[in-house]
Parts: sequence; structure tokens; C-alpha cells
Amino acid sequence: MKNFIFQNPTRLVFGKGEIARLSELLPDGVNLMITYGGGSVTKNGVYDQVRLALRGRNYIEFWGIEPNPRVETLRKAIQLGKENQIDYLLAVGGGSVLDGTKLIAAGIAADEDAWDIVLRGVAEKQIPFASVMTVPATGSEMNGGAVITREETKEKFSFGGDYPQFSILDPEVTYSLSEHQIACGLADAYTHVLEQYMTTPGQSRIMDRWAEGILLSIKEIAPMIKVNPCDYDLMADYMLAATLALNDFIRMGITQDWATHQIGHELTALHGTTHGHSLAIIMPGLLRVLKDQKKSKLLQYGERIFGITEGSEEDRVDKAIEMTEAFYRSLGLTTRLSEEGIGNETVEVIASRFNNRGVAFGENRNVTGDVAREILKSCFPSFPYK
Amino acid sequence: MKNFIFQNPTRLVFGKGEIARLSELLPDGVNLMITYGGGSVTKNGVYDQVRLALRGRNYIEFWGIEPNPRVETLRKAIQLGKENQIDYLLAVGGGSVLDGTKLIAAGIAADEDAWDIVLRGVAEKQIPFASVMTVPATGSEMNGGAVITREETKEKFSFGGDYPQFSILDPEVTYSLSEHQIACGLADAYTHVLEQYMTTPGQSRIMDRWAEGILLSIKEIAPMIKVNPCDYDLMADYMLAATLALNDFIRMGITQDWATHQIGHELTALHGTTHGHSLAIIMPGLLRVLKDQKKSKLLQYGERIFGITEGSEEDRVDKAIEMTEAFYRSLGLTTRLSEEGIGNETVEVIASRFNNRGVAFGENRNVTGDVAREILKSCFPSFPYK
Repeated sequence: MKNFIFQNPTRLVFGKGEIARLSELLPDGVNLMITYGGGSVTKNGVYDQVRLALRGRNYIEFWGIEPNPRVETLRKAIQLGKENQIDYLLAVGGGSVLDGTKLIAAGIAADEDAWDIVLRGVAEKQIPFASVMTVPATGSEMNGGAVITREETKEKFSFGGDYPQFSILDPEVTYSLSEHQIACGLADAYTHVLEQYMTTPGQSRIMDRWAEGILLSIKEIAPMIKVNPCDYDLMADYMLAATLALNDFIRMGITQDWATHQIGHELTALHGTTHGHSLAIIMPGLLRVLKDQKKSKLLQYGERIFGITEGSEEDRVDKAIEMTEAFYRSLGLTTRLSEEGIGNETVEVIASRFNNRGVAFGENRNVTGDVAREILKSCFPSFPYK
Repeated sequence: MKNFIFQNPTRLVFGKGEIARLSELLPDGVNLMITYGGGSVTKNGVYDQVRLALRGRNYIEFWGIEPNPRVETLRKAIQLGKENQIDYLLAVGGGSVLDGTKLIAAGIAADEDAWDIVLRGVAEKQIPFASVMTVPATGSEMNGGAVITREETKEKFSFGGDYPQFSILDPEVTYSLSEHQIACGLADAYTHVLEQYMTTPGQSRIMDRWAEGILLSIKEIAPMIKVNPCDYDLMADYMLAATLALNDFIRMGITQDWATHQIGHELTALHGTTHGHSLAIIMPGLLRVLKDQKKSKLLQYGERIFGITEGSEEDRVDKAIEMTEAFYRSLGLTTRLSEEGIGNETVEVIASRFNNRGVAFGENRNVTGDVAREILKSCFPSFPYK
């Protein structure tokens, strides 16, 4: 096990009706700005619940943080916040609203342009922020990361900083999500776990078991949610899974991968592919290309998640990868670039971007532009891939 | 899933050599008292590491917090702390040193007698404290609980309060633990998980899987540690297991039991039985007596932890309980009161205490004095129990 430092200070407030606690959770006397997305919260009742809970408090609202939040939009929120001496932010919405709010929190606390903060990768200072999370997917509600898009250049990068002061998660607010949103959310959570798990086995028995515990749970609930998307306990399991998939709990003392995310971010930046969907396309491709490097863990994963115990090691590895792709497809997502009309031009743009930036990702830092090209090319043939 | 609020602010600093970080972790300018146990840290090198890390800092030391820390001892530390205007405590030792330090932190911040704080069950205010944890067992390094003994009346009660500011865990410091200490530590961690797991199934898929993940890990490493008690990765797994077994991570949104602990505390208070050992005796007895109530979870546990899939439900439940007791015995612990020379008189004292206090424990609040008597009596016959 590697040495590590773990600290996650976020207060997680979980369960039906908990939005009513908002006012007691917010410190007294803060100058609050509430940030929202495009307006779905006005239809599912969340906006009314928030307004009711904050009756008697003064605050301003900022609307219009889009999916894959754009620095161009967030600059406006930062300006509004500065003009109004805002010192506390509350994000009400999905992971994009909260990610955007993390940059607003940094922008208000800084004198530099927001994109410079993103490019540096770390927010040195942020005003405090909290969230009412409505879309289980990114885990942003209990971590210090955020991913921001610059529309002008079609770039998408992440940065790290403070954790939310608190996050309220009411599984009932998920009842109004579309099947595609749920599919992308489940794919996102599942892939977050794989990014932290599918590296070298034997680094920590408990981290392995905990990652597998989330994978097994997501795999179990996914088909049931399709039939019962308003079952409270199912949606509670889903919502908690998404949070625990990316709140540092399953990465103590171990190496991590994250190359799938880096390639997926490019697909989203260039084509607008929903984040979770981009991962469902790239992760199986990455496993196909790096299956030798990840062989031991793939064997463990195949056995513990899919019960694969028969056949040669090579057969079991291939089967584990096939079943991973089949799982993403079972959610209702495509897993091939060809199905999304994405062609070779995009592959070359991504490979060039990686090569020009001189970056390499993955637990062994060997996913260069050339390896990314190979991964993307393996995502062209129609499914099933042989 | 039940509604819940989760927040664990402790900074966990884990790995070899991390004691050297002590000075950077402690705030500047604090008036520090370091608390110690009986002196084992002077033999295993921890005391020297702490002194080296704190070179140039002023602090006072308090020595002599005993296993099952006594309020009579802690009152002296509280007085010393008050006399010296101490505003920060560092516990260096095992769970007892840290538990005692939690009460010292409360006593220094209060005007009342320390035992009154324990009896209230909650510390309203504490000065900040941190730890260098040397014995993986209680989980005290990352939770807000403490258990205190009053020698005068042979009572042992727990109270809750703040979490450590940080805890340093270096697996190398465990190399000097005795086989009995390790056995009790593993039994303690295993039982902590069972107390949070062995209730009603289906409350949270992930909490079930995470509890099982710790149980499987402990079961896997226990025999290996017997052979290789100085294997870094094994001891790291053990140390992390003990922390994660009782830091709130596996009890989100679920019911809990804790009756075994309540009965075990009485055994310790009356006979000085090591805490982990007392649990190894009581838990199998509790499962025997409450096996109908816990049947569904026992079946799941038997299958997922011990691979028990054959036979009638009753057979599988009995087998799961037998294998649990066999696990405790495999650590080198006895599991019967008769083996410890504890007789019926003690059983009656414990039953009377529970009945006189009017308390009842367990997830269904049905472990009264009478049920405790039944549980204890089932721990008399020699092993294996039929």
C-alpha cells in the first residue's frame, strides 16, 4: 500500500425531505448566491423546495449553467458575484452546475481570469460553497474536483480545490430524470470506480473489495431501475453509489488510471457527447488495448463482478471486457464511435492534442496520443467486437 | 435506506515514516500536552520518533493512561491540563490512550466532573486533539466515540464528541505488538463490522458490500499475519481495516446493533477481559440467541463470507454462527466464559445491571437484562457448542 493522506470534510445530508434543512445548514449572515442550470428544477419541484426552505433569507440567483459548464458562462457569474460581494454559493442541480459553481467560487476569490485557474489545475482559494445535488453521476457533491469547458477552443480540463461544505441528496428528486440521464449517471459512476480499480491488484484488499462492492451494486440495480425508476430504495442505492464512487473513499493508498476520462473529455469537448456516455465508449476500448498490462486485475474483476471462472486466462480477460461493454449497452448506451457518427478525423485531432501537449495518462503514464489513437480506433467496428 | 447525516472531518495520514510529519500537522502556537500509556512506545521507537518530529516545540507529557482508561487517572490529566492552560492534545498510543484523551479534551473544556460527561453520553465541548495510533483495533483514530471505565464502581460507559483533527497511522509501529494484542485487535475490528452489519438485510446494497469487504479482508489476512507479523502490506491492510471498521463509512442509512459491545463492556469492567476478547466471547452467543431475528442477514453473511450455500436455512444459519466462533478461535482467543473462569455470578450481575438501568440494546431494542442472561449462559458450554 502506498502512503496517503485522506480528508473529506463534506457533510453529506441524505434522504427524503432533507432539502428542508437548507437554512439550518447554511451559516447565518452569509451573502448567498444560488446557482442553477437550465430550469429543470422548476419542473421537478426542487426550486420550490429550495425557496420554501430559504424563506426569510436574502440571496441572488444565477441561472443558465449548461451541461459541461463553459468558462464563458461562468465568467458572468463570477462578475455578478463580485459586484454583489457574494461570500457563499449554493449550487442546485447536477454535477455540471456544481462543477461550474466550484469555478465561480474560485473566480470570486481571485483576481485572475477563470480559465487560468483551470489551466493551473488547482484553485488556490475559493469562497465556501455547498450543493443540493439532483443528478447522481459525477460525485462532485463530495469531492474537490471540477471539469470545465472552454467553448471558444473546444477544450475541457479539470481542476481541484475545496470540497463542498455540505451536500443535500434526496433520492426522490431523481424520479424526474430521463432514462438517458440515468444511463449516463450509472455509466459515469461505474467508470469512476473502474478508473480507480482497474490498475495493479494487491495494493489494498479493502479498496479492491469496496470498489467491487460499488460495481456489484450498480450492476444489480441498473436493470431494476429501468423497470422502477421511482422506487425510493433503488434510487437511494443509485444516488449513494454515485457519491461513493468518487469521494476518495476507494482510492486510499492505491494507483489510479483516469486515461478513459481524459480521452472522454476530448470527445465531449469536440462533439458534445454526454460525459457518462463518452466513458461507456472509451473504457471498453482502453481495456482492449491495455489488456496485457491490466491482465491480473481484469481476471479478478471478471471473477468477482461477472463470475467468470472458466477458460484460459486470455479467454477470461476477453470475456470480462466483453461483459463490461455489454453492461454499458444494457443501460441503453452505444459503445462505438461509428454509432455516434464520429470518424477518424476526431481520432487524429485527439491524438495530436495529446502529442502536442506532451501528456501521457494512466497508472503507468503510457497512454500517449499514439495509444489514445489505438484505443479510439478499437471503438470503430460494430458491436460485438471480435 | 434511512435518512442520515454523515461527516467525518479527521485527516488520516497513513504510511511508513509519516510520524515525521507531526510538526507540520499541528497548528502553530498551540499549548500542547502529549498523552501516553504505560511506556511501550519507549520500546518500539515511537516515543523517539515523536520527540524528533517535535524538536523545537514546547509541550508537556502525561503518562500512564491504562488499558480501559479510568476516569480516576484521567481526572489527574485534566487537572494538569487546566493548570498549564493546555489547548491541544496529542494522544500517542492505542485506542485506550486516545479514548482517555478524548475525555481529557472534554474535561479541560468543562467545569464539571469528567464522569458526569461520560454519564451524559455526549461531550458538549472539547479542546482539539489528534493522535499517533499504534494499535489497530478500536477505530478511535477516526471517530467521535470513547469508552471510559470508573474503577471505583467497576462501570464502563461510552460517550461521543469531536473527531480527532488528524491521526497518523504507520503500519511499521505494529511490528512490536504481541500475538494477543493483534488477535484482540482483529477481533475488535471484525466485531465492529458485525455490529453494523448483522441486522436487517436490504437497507443499503453498498453498505452491505463494504461491511463484507472488511470482513473478507480481515478473514483473509488473519492467518497470514500469524506467520508474517512484520509484513508491511499485511499490517497496512490490518491497520486500515481497523480504522474503516468504525469511522461511520459503513453505517450510512442503516440500523445498528451494538448489544455485544454493551455486554462485553460489562465483562471488561467486572473481570478486566481485554475488549476485543470480550467481543469474541459474546458475539457468537448473541448470534445463537438471536438467530431467528437475524436469520436473513446470517444467510447472506454465511454465503458471502464463508461460502455456505448447502443445506437447509437452519443448517446454514447454524454453520455461519459456528464459523464465526471458529474464526475468533483461529485468532488464538477463547470464546467461552468457562474458559476464562467466569461463572454464573457475573451473568447475574450483568443481567441485574441491565434490568436496574432499564436499558435494552440491539437494532430492535430487545436485548434486555434477561436476554443478556440468555446470551451469556449460551457462552458456558465448552466449544464446539451443540
